[in-house]
Amino acid sequence: MATLKVPAQIPSPEDDSEQLRKAFQGWGTDEGLIVKILSHRNSAQRELIRAAYASAHGEDLLTSLDKELSSDFERIVMLWTLGPAERDALLAHEATKKKVTSPNNFILMEIACTRSPLELFKTKQAYQARYKRSIEEDVAYHTSGDFRRLLVPLVSTFRYVGDDVNTALAKTEAKILHEKIADKAYGDEELIRILTTRSKTQLNATLNHYNNEYGNSITKDLKTDPDNEYLKLLRSMIKCFIFPEKYFEKVLRLAINKMGTDEWALTRVVTTRAEVDLQRIADEYQRRNSVPLDIAVSKDTSGDYKDMLLALLGREE
Amino acid sequence: MATLKVPAQIPSPEDDSEQLRKAFQGWGTDEGLIVKILSHRNSAQRELIRAAYASAHGEDLLTSLDKELSSDFERIVMLWTLGPAERDALLAHEATKKKVTSPNNFILMEIACTRSPLELFKTKQAYQARYKRSIEEDVAYHTSGDFRRLLVPLVSTFRYVGDDVNTALAKTEAKILHEKIADKAYGDEELIRILTTRSKTQLNATLNHYNNEYGNSITKDLKTDPDNEYLKLLRSMIKCFIFPEKYFEKVLRLAINKMGTDEWALTRVVTTRAEVDLQRIADEYQRRNSVPLDIAVSKDTSGDYKDMLLALLGREE
Repeated sequence: MATLKVPAQIPSPEDDSEQLRKAFQGWGTDEGLIVKILSHRNSAQRELIRAAYASAHGEDLLTSLDKELSSDFERIVMLWTLGPAERDALLAHEATKKKVTSPNNFILMEIACTRSPLELFKTKQAYQARYKRSIEEDVAYHTSGDFRRLLVPLVSTFRYVGDDVNTALAKTEAKILHEKIADKAYGDEELIRILTTRSKTQLNATLNHYNNEYGNSITKDLKTDPDNEYLKLLRSMIKCFIFPEKYFEKVLRLAINKMGTDEWALTRVVTTRAEVDLQRIADEYQRRNSVPLDIAVSKDTSGDYKDMLLALLGREE
Repeated sequence: MATLKVPAQIPSPEDDSEQLRKAFQGWGTDEGLIVKILSHRNSAQRELIRAAYASAHGEDLLTSLDKELSSDFERIVMLWTLGPAERDALLAHEATKKKVTSPNNFILMEIACTRSPLELFKTKQAYQARYKRSIEEDVAYHTSGDFRRLLVPLVSTFRYVGDDVNTALAKTEAKILHEKIADKAYGDEELIRILTTRSKTQLNATLNHYNNEYGNSITKDLKTDPDNEYLKLLRSMIKCFIFPEKYFEKVLRLAINKMGTDEWALTRVVTTRAEVDLQRIADEYQRRNSVPLDIAVSKDTSGDYKDMLLALLGREE
């Protein structure tokens, strides 16, 4: 369930493009107009606006936005304007550029695990078109140890999508997972093989069997050391497979509740989920925090950035 | 350079389909007619014939072929009639069905390394459509040790295709490869990372630098133990990247020259390369064996199977 609201009647891409051009001209930029247009167009419509803008003005709309806008507002408008594959490619590239540190590992995992296999594949194509390298080689190059052993297959595998479950296999592999975790062999090859190659449906069956047979959920058994970043990544990954709304709710909760908002995380979740499942995430947020997500966001942010966030969250103007 | 010869004027797919139907009917099958039609149609044309046949007779052409033909002739006609992605999916599935043994590892490597990244991706889709699992999970499940560490990323990575070479990186990574090989650390993570994630162009630059800087080709340095199957797989893989005709020439040479022909290998190479580079492979074969490939094949095979092989090799009737 998306939060994006597209009006029943929208102007042509050419008209939208001209309105945006006007918003850039004259004294100061008309941020309100930018929000009003872009936050209410879906990704196919935004692509047409970009094409119309480029053919009318010989410049990519993103370049103009980059010139006119700044700071958090710039980032949210830029990320939102990009199509899903290009946006994920950009986020993944940021995460691999530096020696990968904790939040970057989580962003790579998030992209690999919460998108469909075909979406992930399109992101790989967009990544190659833009950066002239594969996401696989960049992740492999910038990671090491257990993180590499987990993240490289995670971004590489083209998982099967389907409802087929092999129950016997689920039992065998639940047993393997339980043995490895009991031995604290969290970086074990077999454990990683199962988690990085099986379909989400199959994994779900395996983890249900784990829970039934061994009395604890796997995430609970992976909580032996709360400060261990790799275990945290494993737990988050499993959440992304089984219950992505819960994963994203927690990212938002931490982004909003800590001293000083984490605008990058907030912007990332809102722009990547507004057309997908942000309504479910917002429902989950309200259940967990007893406050609606848009209220929490509006208390914590301000100005054009806040307006854009609230518009993407689907709040009526 | 393909060896496949398609006549300038060909019948409609419906006519071809009816001719094939006739070949199946009456007393005995008309194998000559089957060879005459199918061996002179490219993969797009064969797909149209299959569609015409299915709509006229309510049965997949492959099912009819399966009923009518047998042994080596059946296998070559079936493999050839399939499109490239479906054929590779079938070959890969055969190679993963059993606990993977030596030739199977080589077939998986061959498919992963001699097809383009996009072809490999289409094979993954065909594999999932047919077997309801991913090739990644099947390879990971049926392999172990160094073979698994190499083969899983090999079939998983969507490599970058392009002419961009990072020379500094080629030097650094040639050095890493040389150090690991000097230490006999052939299953080392870094060595595998480089070989399984870099683009073929980048790898080529790295291996050229290796050769220039350290005096030997990497394949020579990987020949410390001629009986080691894993080293053999590494060497073959590098050949597949750098000089695939040489790799396939050797497969054919071993298939033809040993006592008793290896029909499975011969059929595999001829059906998978006839529309791609079988002419180059044949040229390489003649250079290396001083006998034309079609002559060697015709001495070693017989009957309809031989006729189909020679037709695919482009020999004029």
